Amino acid sequence: MLRTHTCGELRRSHIGQTVTLTGWVQQNRDRGGVLWIDLRDRYGITQLVFYRSETESALLEQARSLGREFVIQASGVVVARGSQNRKNPTGEIELKVDAVTVLNASKIPPFTIEDNTDGGVELRMRYRYLDLRRPQARERLLLRDQLARQTRAYFHSQNFTEVETPVLIKPTPEGARDFVVPSRINPGEFYSLPQSPQLFKQLLMIAGFDRYFQIVKCFRDEDLRADRQPEFTQLDCEMAFVTQDDILSTFEGLIRKLFATVKGVELPEIPCMTYADAMRLYGTDKPDTRYGMQFVELNEEVKGRGFGLFDEAEWVAGFCAPGGYADYTRSQLDKLAAFLKRHKLGADGLVWAHYTVDGLPKSSVDKFYAEDSVKTWLEKCGANPGDLLLILAGPADKTRKALGELRLLIGEQLGFRDKNTFSALWVVDFPLLEWSEETGRYLAMHHPFTLPKHEDIAMLDTDPGKVRANAYDLVINGTEIGGGSLRIHDRQTQELIFKRLGLTEEEIQQQFGFLLEAFEYGAPPHGGIALGFDRLCSLFAGSDSIRDVIAFPKNNSGRDTMTDSPSTISDERLAELAISLLPKR
Amino acid sequence: MLRTHTCGELRRSHIGQTVTLTGWVQQNRDRGGVLWIDLRDRYGITQLVFYRSETESALLEQARSLGREFVIQASGVVVARGSQNRKNPTGEIELKVDAVTVLNASKIPPFTIEDNTDGGVELRMRYRYLDLRRPQARERLLLRDQLARQTRAYFHSQNFTEVETPVLIKPTPEGARDFVVPSRINPGEFYSLPQSPQLFKQLLMIAGFDRYFQIVKCFRDEDLRADRQPEFTQLDCEMAFVTQDDILSTFEGLIRKLFATVKGVELPEIPCMTYADAMRLYGTDKPDTRYGMQFVELNEEVKGRGFGLFDEAEWVAGFCAPGGYADYTRSQLDKLAAFLKRHKLGADGLVWAHYTVDGLPKSSVDKFYAEDSVKTWLEKCGANPGDLLLILAGPADKTRKALGELRLLIGEQLGFRDKNTFSALWVVDFPLLEWSEETGRYLAMHHPFTLPKHEDIAMLDTDPGKVRANAYDLVINGTEIGGGSLRIHDRQTQELIFKRLGLTEEEIQQQFGFLLEAFEYGAPPHGGIALGFDRLCSLFAGSDSIRDVIAFPKNNSGRDTMTDSPSTISDERLAELAISLLPKR
Repeated sequence: MLRTHTCGELRRSHIGQTVTLTGWVQQNRDRGGVLWIDLRDRYGITQLVFYRSETESALLEQARSLGREFVIQASGVVVARGSQNRKNPTGEIELKVDAVTVLNASKIPPFTIEDNTDGGVELRMRYRYLDLRRPQARERLLLRDQLARQTRAYFHSQNFTEVETPVLIKPTPEGARDFVVPSRINPGEFYSLPQSPQLFKQLLMIAGFDRYFQIVKCFRDEDLRADRQPEFTQLDCEMAFVTQDDILSTFEGLIRKLFATVKGVELPEIPCMTYADAMRLYGTDKPDTRYGMQFVELNEEVKGRGFGLFDEAEWVAGFCAPGGYADYTRSQLDKLAAFLKRHKLGADGLVWAHYTVDGLPKSSVDKFYAEDSVKTWLEKCGANPGDLLLILAGPADKTRKALGELRLLIGEQLGFRDKNTFSALWVVDFPLLEWSEETGRYLAMHHPFTLPKHEDIAMLDTDPGKVRANAYDLVINGTEIGGGSLRIHDRQTQELIFKRLGLTEEEIQQQFGFLLEAFEYGAPPHGGIALGFDRLCSLFAGSDSIRDVIAFPKNNSGRDTMTDSPSTISDERLAELAISLLPKR
Repeated sequence: MLRTHTCGELRRSHIGQTVTLTGWVQQNRDRGGVLWIDLRDRYGITQLVFYRSETESALLEQARSLGREFVIQASGVVVARGSQNRKNPTGEIELKVDAVTVLNASKIPPFTIEDNTDGGVELRMRYRYLDLRRPQARERLLLRDQLARQTRAYFHSQNFTEVETPVLIKPTPEGARDFVVPSRINPGEFYSLPQSPQLFKQLLMIAGFDRYFQIVKCFRDEDLRADRQPEFTQLDCEMAFVTQDDILSTFEGLIRKLFATVKGVELPEIPCMTYADAMRLYGTDKPDTRYGMQFVELNEEVKGRGFGLFDEAEWVAGFCAPGGYADYTRSQLDKLAAFLKRHKLGADGLVWAHYTVDGLPKSSVDKFYAEDSVKTWLEKCGANPGDLLLILAGPADKTRKALGELRLLIGEQLGFRDKNTFSALWVVDFPLLEWSEETGRYLAMHHPFTLPKHEDIAMLDTDPGKVRANAYDLVINGTEIGGGSLRIHDRQTQELIFKRLGLTEEEIQQQFGFLLEAFEYGAPPHGGIALGFDRLCSLFAGSDSIRDVIAFPKNNSGRDTMTDSPSTISDERLAELAISLLPKR
């Protein structure tokens, strides 16, 4: 090694030792007769000191020439520091330098290498290798490594085997979100990149592996919303001979272990809530349960008093924001209504109610409703003096969604969405199918391999939207961290579902013939789950974006601005791949 | 769980307990009044027993109907076994079954689910999920998992961080072996899939990560030789502030730990040999050092005696096969010569020599060489009575290669290449460049980021082929398991090498501008290594092919015959990707 110690290692016990350090010049403080350099590496910062003396003046001059981010090797003796820096683990000592070698110079970096940097996100992504020198950026990747380690340790302790599944897989005709890869040695044919290892992990169950997991890259070629990446990492898992509860409790064990070992947080047992209840109480299938503010339906209480908005509405409901009355002035409330409009949430107006300082019920629709009416609302919603009841009315689905968004906004504004508080929830009994306006038919809500609830299968013919699946999501702090299901493991049920999803016999055979055949050779009952590993890391890092926990992320256009990728390739290579470019539209 | 125990778990201590097992019917032995089923899962095999009795005859009938590979759930009481099976850990007990549920039936599998199966490789790959039920196939994937676990544990203990690098990267214009991926949202542009994370791991060093590793999928679109795969797994690693020795000793630590923990083999310290010596002594840069048989050059001893083959040869050398004389008849020796011709090894003939039973030197060219001449050869080569000296002559490079192949063949035939013996070697000081007949210029032997030996750099202008690199390979039992190098970390040297490799300024800037720029912001000295993880697993498994240690491998044409991939995609999808197929040639 070009060093004897790291920059995070030296303590009082090293005083008097001759050591060699390597690292980057964090800063250089020149006081004339003495000069200090903070030398940084991954492990910490150690202070170097250079004194003016007859023998060492050349050295001092050399030290003076060392700019920010120069890479140097410095040798000398560890000495006690006059004024100790208690914040820094190496703060009791400094290195009195005898010799310095410049291992590499540096231009002045385009932004400061500090947590509180002056570089904007675009500049930092362009120079990601400098951005990653910032302690916070580095710590996030170290945290990611730590989470992967603890995850693997947990699964191995539970008898799971990590198996690598293929990245070059069979394309599916309708897989519009698959990336494809032309095969040079099979001209005209393509691989695709997996959106998940779904079929392979099911085949591993059929192969008898019993318990499989993998931390694995997956791919999705979609228009990138704010916080998506074309390549992302999944924590993927499958188990045979299990019930849904076995899968949930195995994963609950993982999540609680990760919180305990990595964050020192004792997460309580994770409760279950049905999809139906989540929609009814929070207007979303991924409720943020760090705070209450559950919806209360008020249809019965409000109808028939001549107030058109409520009378004509399919659904009227509200929630009670604890302590909200004090926090919201009239004009702030007006801004909330504007928020709803801006988000095109389809809500026809915001109504509020609360107790006055004198304890009297009051609402924004006092013209239509007497005090005792408003009081019934407030009481039904469990409002206390000082609380603010917010009510929306309109078409049920849209209004539910709007009220859910409003609940999140209010929760944020009232400080209920603290990043250091964690609340996890299993949402269970998802619908098997969802209606697609675009295609005019039912699509699989999760994927076509999900096992319907046995007691609901008959409804596939009569009321497909009502069929529930053995499917579940893990939600933490209002973010969907993962989801899974029990799978179909017999040919008949799988064929039935494929047909209900509108696939022809030929399509079924061409795309999934191998799976149906596999089901005929002793496929065991099985099920599994997949977690978004980037999302989980981001949650643990307290970060707003998964980009923060990815070493080299892409931007919203799927571009890596550092290397300038993707890019064009030569006509010669296109010809080798037996493809050509279409003229630009 | 649908079971209370696994099929590998029950022992004498469980006798009397009521348990439920799940698994596959391995076999069904019917003796009329009593019937046994071997029930198999990943963890083992447990014997189920069914007796004829008034109350249980229906159960016996049911058991009789259970065919091979049926998936069942069986409940009953654990009882002691009459005749114990010492080979099976569960062999002291059996399960007296009270109730059976068929969880899934099975057609008769296309081959037997046993180590010694009757299925050929094509059939087994087509039904890989059944192939993987064979204990040997399963154990190989469990071994792979074990190797990955131990590898990660080692690197973490050495302060390495595992960082995921991108799979969708920038294509390089001349990267003919890169798979490419059209970007739908950037029409006309492509990502490529990495052959290695080389540039990203170097950027991580520049980012200050100090010690990086990753077990990572890589991709190469080449015509697949016997034992290559289009996607393969690399154990990738990079370290900053290191010398070559630091990297070798870190990796040596890993390899020895893996042998110790996974195979129980105490591998001795790994010796180093220069590339020049390896070529001189073994005719290859990946010598199998499980046995000696090093080459001895005989030019001086054989020339000028009127034997044209030797007189006209650029290079004459041989090796001594210990005990070989007894093993090789004249006609077997003739077959060796035929082997050389068949392999077009370019050798002009095989000459042999040995001591007769009377201790007299004898050779196949006695016409030209007297006994005392032959004696000098035998002595120089260290031959003992009973040994066989084999000599080849011809153009140096070709003949060296041929003699190397011959040495491997003889070593195989004489039983020196035992799969349970392990001999590792570092081959160091590789040439930086190699001459390409095809392109008529020098190419990088390893890759263009390899650091030349400081003392050889001047020869880049005068004798490029002689420039040595700080590059090394790890060879075990004659297989290249991995390789690496110290890297260039300054802009000037990197530009010099790019230019020497024939890249124009524009090409350098377009392809590697970001790297050259990164070198200007304090790039530390660094180096690393990458191991072929599939190859390592295959070595540990004692298997001849990396396919055996890959869950779902592809065949020689890059096809997965199980899912029938790659395959065509629709014109609609091609249009979305802004590409079209070229007409078939």
